[in-house]
Amino acid sequence: MRILILGATGGLGQALARQLQGQGELLLVGRRPQVLRDLAQELGGSSLRGDLSDELEASALLEQAGPVDLLFHAVGVAGRAPARETGRQLLEAMLSAHFLSAANVLKYARFGQGARAVFFGAYPAYVRVPGFGAYAAAKAALEAYLEVARKELRKDGVRLILVRLPAVATPLWTPLGGPPRGALAPEEAARKVLEAVLGDAGDEVAL
Amino acid sequence: MRILILGATGGLGQALARQLQGQGELLLVGRRPQVLRDLAQELGGSSLRGDLSDELEASALLEQAGPVDLLFHAVGVAGRAPARETGRQLLEAMLSAHFLSAANVLKYARFGQGARAVFFGAYPAYVRVPGFGAYAAAKAALEAYLEVARKELRKDGVRLILVRLPAVATPLWTPLGGPPRGALAPEEAARKVLEAVLGDAGDEVAL
Repeated sequence: MRILILGATGGLGQALARQLQGQGELLLVGRRPQVLRDLAQELGGSSLRGDLSDELEASALLEQAGPVDLLFHAVGVAGRAPARETGRQLLEAMLSAHFLSAANVLKYARFGQGARAVFFGAYPAYVRVPGFGAYAAAKAALEAYLEVARKELRKDGVRLILVRLPAVATPLWTPLGGPPRGALAPEEAARKVLEAVLGDAGDEVAL
Repeated sequence: MRILILGATGGLGQALARQLQGQGELLLVGRRPQVLRDLAQELGGSSLRGDLSDELEASALLEQAGPVDLLFHAVGVAGRAPARETGRQLLEAMLSAHFLSAANVLKYARFGQGARAVFFGAYPAYVRVPGFGAYAAAKAALEAYLEVARKELRKDGVRLILVRLPAVATPLWTPLGGPPRGALAPEEAARKVLEAVLGDAGDEVAL
């Protein structure tokens, strides 16, 4: 099984990578070069670099990765501002990380027969709160896009899985002063994700 | 009452403008200069120009428009491609028209006391269909963003209204070979929208 983890240097991605060690060939993509190399070496996987929100880089990276059987899009950033103060920069940061990167993956990923690709959504009730409009919009865009792509790719035997997670206590939240109360530990989140995805869960998983 | 219609040269925007003639001071914004000038002259309103998806232009335009009591964001484009063929160009076109323009409006519009601002959503069941991923994602982003902005702006006495419409038979659909079967005539759609928005409808209207 060839396993591609996008966002492998993030909190959730790292936890997924560690828990998947020994279950297949690990291909790791992440934004922090040193952490990525160390992780790949530690786990016996390979590392690939590229900005997934850039269409050309995403295309090259996914071509290089080759056909995969299990893919995790564990890419994301957090940001906060009320709508009256939200400009292009925050909107683009949120859309690029959560949505455009996923759209590029859905366009260029090469899937093995029966492949599964996992994306991370949000609970509307948790994120549609003051200050989180840009984040909530980017997640909503991802979720809608995935719903359509799922219908399109089913005929190719590819399963697109949306996993909704409550907040996970990762460095994603550092710019906002730390994770929300009750956030899951990344190891716990990764364990639940793998249990659902490697088991018989449906196309939409709520954890 | 000062009424600002964004997208006033589109099918729905024009119909809204005509039906609002005589109910207040009409400020019209649209992408087709000649049509816009003619319409403003015919209805006794004024016309403003600018690209609403560009933050600087949107800011200047909305400053020039001044405080408004009723605003319609009747801006949109249609586009179609499966996810395996959807690149940056289509994604940006959809996001700019449906979502970024609305975010700029929500940032820069000047609202009178008790103002209402109306945005147009989509029915998930109609748009989350093969080929419409980018369109569906942009509408989903708009809807989520609006839900958050509504909570933020309520304290200022501004009402943000989401109107879900079935397809409207406008030139929006020309690039796709014409409107879907059963599309509403623009005049009929505008009539229903105004009936709901000027009446006692809630924050989310399904027509």
